[in-house]
Amino acid sequence: MHILDTFFNPKSVAIIGASRNPEKIGHVFLNNLLETGYKGKVYPVNPKTTSIKGLRCYPSIAEAVKANKKPIDLAVISIPTEPSIVVTDNCGTLKIKNILSITAGFSEVGNTDAEERLKKVIQKHKLNFMGPNCLGIIDAYSGLDMIFLPKVRLKRPDKGKVSFICQSGAIGSATLDLLSAQGLGFSKFITYGNATTMNETHLLEYLGKDKNTDVVCMYIEGVREGKRFIDVAKKVTKKKPVIVLKGGWTVSGAHATMSHTASLAGAAAVYKGAFKQANIIKADTLYDLYDFAKILEKAPKPKGRRVQVITNGGGFGILCADGIDQNKLTTGKLQRKTESFLTKKLPKEYVIHNPIDLTGGAKTEDYNIAIKACLEDTGSDIILLVLLMQTPLLDIKVIDIVAKYNKQQKKPIVAVLTGGSFTEIQKQRLEAAGVPCYTYPTNATKSIKALCDYYEK
Amino acid sequence: MHILDTFFNPKSVAIIGASRNPEKIGHVFLNNLLETGYKGKVYPVNPKTTSIKGLRCYPSIAEAVKANKKPIDLAVISIPTEPSIVVTDNCGTLKIKNILSITAGFSEVGNTDAEERLKKVIQKHKLNFMGPNCLGIIDAYSGLDMIFLPKVRLKRPDKGKVSFICQSGAIGSATLDLLSAQGLGFSKFITYGNATTMNETHLLEYLGKDKNTDVVCMYIEGVREGKRFIDVAKKVTKKKPVIVLKGGWTVSGAHATMSHTASLAGAAAVYKGAFKQANIIKADTLYDLYDFAKILEKAPKPKGRRVQVITNGGGFGILCADGIDQNKLTTGKLQRKTESFLTKKLPKEYVIHNPIDLTGGAKTEDYNIAIKACLEDTGSDIILLVLLMQTPLLDIKVIDIVAKYNKQQKKPIVAVLTGGSFTEIQKQRLEAAGVPCYTYPTNATKSIKALCDYYEK
Repeated sequence: MHILDTFFNPKSVAIIGASRNPEKIGHVFLNNLLETGYKGKVYPVNPKTTSIKGLRCYPSIAEAVKANKKPIDLAVISIPTEPSIVVTDNCGTLKIKNILSITAGFSEVGNTDAEERLKKVIQKHKLNFMGPNCLGIIDAYSGLDMIFLPKVRLKRPDKGKVSFICQSGAIGSATLDLLSAQGLGFSKFITYGNATTMNETHLLEYLGKDKNTDVVCMYIEGVREGKRFIDVAKKVTKKKPVIVLKGGWTVSGAHATMSHTASLAGAAAVYKGAFKQANIIKADTLYDLYDFAKILEKAPKPKGRRVQVITNGGGFGILCADGIDQNKLTTGKLQRKTESFLTKKLPKEYVIHNPIDLTGGAKTEDYNIAIKACLEDTGSDIILLVLLMQTPLLDIKVIDIVAKYNKQQKKPIVAVLTGGSFTEIQKQRLEAAGVPCYTYPTNATKSIKALCDYYEK
Repeated sequence: MHILDTFFNPKSVAIIGASRNPEKIGHVFLNNLLETGYKGKVYPVNPKTTSIKGLRCYPSIAEAVKANKKPIDLAVISIPTEPSIVVTDNCGTLKIKNILSITAGFSEVGNTDAEERLKKVIQKHKLNFMGPNCLGIIDAYSGLDMIFLPKVRLKRPDKGKVSFICQSGAIGSATLDLLSAQGLGFSKFITYGNATTMNETHLLEYLGKDKNTDVVCMYIEGVREGKRFIDVAKKVTKKKPVIVLKGGWTVSGAHATMSHTASLAGAAAVYKGAFKQANIIKADTLYDLYDFAKILEKAPKPKGRRVQVITNGGGFGILCADGIDQNKLTTGKLQRKTESFLTKKLPKEYVIHNPIDLTGGAKTEDYNIAIKACLEDTGSDIILLVLLMQTPLLDIKVIDIVAKYNKQQKKPIVAVLTGGSFTEIQKQRLEAAGVPCYTYPTNATKSIKALCDYYEK
């Protein structure tokens, strides 16, 4: 059992700073935890009140531990800066090992003195301390919802196999909200704030061993233990993909990080080299992060980087071809026999080449024929499918056909669907069936590159 | 009056190839035209039937013209390749000047002979001939809906000031569908297929003079009259922005265009140079195209390229700062007096710098204070606003406040809102109020660059 397992699967949780006032973070916390159906014991702690939301409220963490009859598994701290240091010390004395601290006002605002004192307390008691100045954590499997943002504002994700470690609470929460709305599932979502002791390296190591995590996404502004991070990443990437978006990549960006999580953003070149060495996939943008996560979670390992495009829109075929070149992938070449088979089977105005252009007249059966032939063809390793659902002759059964072939896992099948609500519904159906889907050819081809790069190492 | 005005505002339309069969393009055409509430006369032409959808159907275009008592303003042709050439000739003889041809089977499938013969017919009668092999046109102002895709599959746009010229029907239609669903308005939407005679240059020239068009977006695969295109573009860009996505930019992409609209995709470097010379804004992706259109349609002219970021999430501030550097913009610097004013007015844990970080505790009033001060500050030319709506203390009145300041048009205000449905609603409200909004910092900063580049010329 990993030391952090209890952190994410606590049997008892104390909320220090729980409040009756719905405007207070301590209130939202308690509320979310109760609403998610967390099964363990919950101990609100606040000397100014005796009950919150029907739960008894304890005047001190010591009283809460007394009621629990043994040390509480996890304490969440949401009180002002100085008292939070005192309470952390109290928790340590009471043998509480796991602490999540939302409290701000430390090094991120230049108060390095307070952070140093906090650090000493943490080290004295050998605590697993997440934060301070973090947003919280979610474990979709254990039902632990420790994010201080209300659900009406931030949708929670379904269970999935992608975990997200995020130095910035804002980026973490906004992304989580956006992706949950798009139907993407998550396993663990972790924001770790100032990382006074527990940092990106500890968390990466933990997720490397987590059976509910198949892909690790990270947003980091700086790395505290450079060498150890790379060593750990090397090990983890042998088992599962790790995708990293580094904030503060530029001079202005680096300057901005100084006043955020108080980490020194390093030179771009150093990071780039280190990422490559550890087979970390570098995301350039926020959407890269989850575009890449999607394909790495869903697609099987490709045999190579030769892509065959099948489209019902010529222009989309061209943009896919451009994307293949721009991302250093290779244009697949149909075997002679496949080419003559498809030429015979499909209407003569279709273009049997790469891209295979089924034109605006494409029917579902045409896709069936083309996909089947391309899966068997040895001239390509990956199929990039453009499905423009606006054309009236293409019926929605095409989604089921693609899903069927995708299940065989012969080659990665990646799809592009661009359009409004009619298209969006079909896209979500296809994605639910395990096919990574994108709105634009650019995103699809860049993601295919990430998939190939990961497995080529 | 421009020669193409009648094309987009016809008083009478003949649909050659109109059909009772809902699976046929000629049926969808007629249906869409009738449903949109087009006010002119409609003449279905098909020798095999006598009435379609309650309208009398004419056995030939000659009979239709006879019924109209004068030449019909616009004929739409949707019949097989060879007969379409004959009918085009007939139209010319009957003094019909404007023709839109959906018919495929010409140079795009290697049938250059048929296209040459068609071309001769067009030239003989001096026709305004759009196509062949195009998807159709929409004029949101005249109500002319000439797209052969059914409305249930492809949402139609609201009236707006952006027009789109698109060589690829698929790209045009998918984009139109996607953007209409996002609430973006359009003026004219034109697909021109093989451009046998009427090409991108004619259309650009026309839209340059169109009073309902403030921004021109183009997707092109090749340019037929290079020098004239650049000359026309130079004139148009003096009055309004022109944004171009060029398909077939790479070797593989260029190869793919050969079998699409039969245009030779030229070398990237030549295009790049020519675009620059004509002050054409180059889009790298489909989403660039409308990201750029949005800011150029909505934002006032900036005085320079210094950007001030205001955020309630530190990580987002960093990504904005990275985007500023990556897009060769400048980080704005607050005047001393603004800095001390804001330091006094706002809580001490806020970071008063660039980015201004109002933190997760930001309230609407904090944004009010910060935006007002930054609009008056002479240290920046553009305000980039991050509004993370997940934080419970920020109420939705912040949207009204931003909208109010935006109305003053003192500096361009650009916003980033990332999140699920709650955020999406606020984003659409803000966009409706005229503020260009983006989901990711990357897209916002790249669009700001496009805005600055356009006005710097």
